[in-house]
Amino acid sequence: MRPFELTLAEAADAVANGELSPVELTGSVLERIDAVEERLGAYVAVTDEAARRSAALAEHEIAAGRYRGPLHGMPFGLKDLIDVAGLPTTASSRVREGHAAQADSAVTRSLLDAGAVLLGKTHTHEFAYGLTTPQTRNAWDQGRVAGGSSGGSAVAVAAGAATFALGTDTGGSIRVPAALNGVVGLKPTYGLISRHGVTSLSWSLDHVGPLTRTVRDAALVLSALVGHDAQDPAGLGAARPGHPLPGERDLTGLRVGVPANYYFDRVSPEVETAVRRAIAQLSDLGADLVEVEIPMARYIQATQWGLMVPEATAYHERALRSVPELYGPDVRVLLEAGELLSAGDYLRAQRARTLMRQEWARLLEQVDVIAAPTVPMTAAEAGQDTVAWPDGTTESVSDTYVRLSAPANITGLPALTLPVGRDRGGLPIGMQLMGPPMGEARVLRVGHAYESVRSGRGGQAAVTG
Amino acid sequence: MRPFELTLAEAADAVANGELSPVELTGSVLERIDAVEERLGAYVAVTDEAARRSAALAEHEIAAGRYRGPLHGMPFGLKDLIDVAGLPTTASSRVREGHAAQADSAVTRSLLDAGAVLLGKTHTHEFAYGLTTPQTRNAWDQGRVAGGSSGGSAVAVAAGAATFALGTDTGGSIRVPAALNGVVGLKPTYGLISRHGVTSLSWSLDHVGPLTRTVRDAALVLSALVGHDAQDPAGLGAARPGHPLPGERDLTGLRVGVPANYYFDRVSPEVETAVRRAIAQLSDLGADLVEVEIPMARYIQATQWGLMVPEATAYHERALRSVPELYGPDVRVLLEAGELLSAGDYLRAQRARTLMRQEWARLLEQVDVIAAPTVPMTAAEAGQDTVAWPDGTTESVSDTYVRLSAPANITGLPALTLPVGRDRGGLPIGMQLMGPPMGEARVLRVGHAYESVRSGRGGQAAVTG
Repeated sequence: MRPFELTLAEAADAVANGELSPVELTGSVLERIDAVEERLGAYVAVTDEAARRSAALAEHEIAAGRYRGPLHGMPFGLKDLIDVAGLPTTASSRVREGHAAQADSAVTRSLLDAGAVLLGKTHTHEFAYGLTTPQTRNAWDQGRVAGGSSGGSAVAVAAGAATFALGTDTGGSIRVPAALNGVVGLKPTYGLISRHGVTSLSWSLDHVGPLTRTVRDAALVLSALVGHDAQDPAGLGAARPGHPLPGERDLTGLRVGVPANYYFDRVSPEVETAVRRAIAQLSDLGADLVEVEIPMARYIQATQWGLMVPEATAYHERALRSVPELYGPDVRVLLEAGELLSAGDYLRAQRARTLMRQEWARLLEQVDVIAAPTVPMTAAEAGQDTVAWPDGTTESVSDTYVRLSAPANITGLPALTLPVGRDRGGLPIGMQLMGPPMGEARVLRVGHAYESVRSGRGGQAAVTG
Repeated sequence: MRPFELTLAEAADAVANGELSPVELTGSVLERIDAVEERLGAYVAVTDEAARRSAALAEHEIAAGRYRGPLHGMPFGLKDLIDVAGLPTTASSRVREGHAAQADSAVTRSLLDAGAVLLGKTHTHEFAYGLTTPQTRNAWDQGRVAGGSSGGSAVAVAAGAATFALGTDTGGSIRVPAALNGVVGLKPTYGLISRHGVTSLSWSLDHVGPLTRTVRDAALVLSALVGHDAQDPAGLGAARPGHPLPGERDLTGLRVGVPANYYFDRVSPEVETAVRRAIAQLSDLGADLVEVEIPMARYIQATQWGLMVPEATAYHERALRSVPELYGPDVRVLLEAGELLSAGDYLRAQRARTLMRQEWARLLEQVDVIAAPTVPMTAAEAGQDTVAWPDGTTESVSDTYVRLSAPANITGLPALTLPVGRDRGGLPIGMQLMGPPMGEARVLRVGHAYESVRSGRGGQAAVTG
């Protein structure tokens, strides 16, 4: 197995044991980027020289006995909404031309402090305001969308072009591309991970989190990221979630909520079958399946958009007046639509969120986690705008992809997606596990139990060659 | 001295020592209400039979050795925004005709649990949305406004028609009428006291707090109110502030911030003189006076109104559509104006608040408290709409009264007002002390030190006869 194919945990073990050097690993991943990047378009910029220097430094430190932990020497990609001192944060937008970040974001700092090796910045749907990331192509089928907005990060991890990556998630932007590219994505509890130095889309819905090849890898990255940053106004303080224990598979007594409504409505049959099969495997591992009713389901979409649209417009207020022509047409129309919303519309969405949070909190007293599809369908074809469902309704691709991920943004609950199969076309299918606030350890434990029995190892690279 | 003239602390001591019975005290206050209510209009409804029964029960409990503490047997008034099970909460509005509260509010419950005796419900400016409380007359001059919106509570306490009372404060609604009627008012830290069961004006600015005759009394009431209510979404948890020690007068080493801008601009000379004299007395007690710059002063008004107006309109959305004609014209126009604000306007106000909170937090690292006028002028004449200032500007009476109190609502900081003199017409002047979040004990200590040296006792009843 070539080093770029290793999971983060495998690579970290090999480095810790002296079987693999950070220079060798980083070199292998950089070669992989060279081999696949033209086809995939995952990266805005690859900082290869700096990466090789960092890898050499990591090798030197480890050889000198200054091993910093499992992320030491591990090459990673950063969604290009996340500041790195001295590099532009382009947000994949022409609006940001000439930009250069003054300082590292809090998460960049955490990863660099852990000894990780920055490979470069990955593509986002412009300013994170979309679900497809048009510059990037799906790792499994280059005629299909990467998903978004953290499309570059998901595709890089899927293709072996990064050992792990970070993304951001406002309405599903970590989980959607993770699901569509067959990798793991974690949207943590709102406020758990600092957003200081991360370009905002909608501050009351924005989250930063990892994209990895396995659940165990997601837990490793989360550990490095967790911690209080007094500079994030939503920071939750120094609370640190526990980790899943590798190999822990017994789910006896765990109550898994299976939605009776909403999450299996207008979902493609192949997605439904794969997710229900995965849920059955949780039952085989000892979990009790409990049918649950998703509260206030008919208000989810209006609440998500009612919060996101005005907050996004407020953030872009100045640029929207001075250089509207620099935005892509899809993003510009959304931003301009935000100017038409009234304060009452926004406040109604805020109040719906408050009620929704209360109802979900009650739901998560009845069950330990909720298991559901991450997205209703696998990757759409590039350029596809709408989805026609068998019930006669038509939905935009964006609405389809946001629909099942939005509840965890509105409520701030942790949500993990992990691959649970592929459709007939070979496209990955994701299952979502949602838990109570600060319940990261719990969703990771369940996800890890599933992946432990499903395959000897995860992290298969999507693109061959 | 007649019992109704006693301060809460004096009455509580007399009851605890067996020198005064709750029945005698309550009877005296009810007689006082009979004597002055026609002139003052402080009460929406007096529940005299229930009050006498509660007083008799308190007397019985105390005689049986079940003394509950300083509020036991103490008669109080409740602003008629605060629910009492079985009574209407009229909000002094025709919109609430036929209303009856299903349950006690959290603060009602706290006071009743402490053994206090409810006298009745006091007038508010309709739905707390105004600064005058037109149904009620100033306790010192019945041709002048009571101030608002907790006008009934302030006037009742000033006139001896309640031993203490509760009010609510969204832009000064406890402090303004307290200052204009020569009593003490405390707006606590945002979230410290539960608002469950209290009609909302603007949920991100609303606070509940005491109106009393002395600072020591305010501390006694605060003690009974403080505590976590899981039903208030802004609840701060079980943190309890300390109390000032009676008689503690030494302020050596305390840094008192004296604003160089904003708080003495467009303030009547008599108010300025009285407040500066009171600040000099703090210096005589050992405090260090430090000149401070009020941050972002020119954004205060827009931020206060930008938050309050849309939140109020959102709360009244349904009634405003179904029965707009039942609102008074001044309140209706404000509620309807709220429909015209955009989500962007509201979000700009929210963002300004975030910055203002940060700046004030920095300011309160430089000083321990800030001392300033509570309101720029004494009580306006009834029916007066505007104020002409010597600098040539004209201001509405509402804007004048909100101007100096709004910062503590926007920032959520604790703010105490206490009487520091009277103008030539005999109308009371208030000084405001603001402190850091959860700094109630500190502002109470400073206020108490001032009142300890200024007069042997506070609590002079305003209306003679």
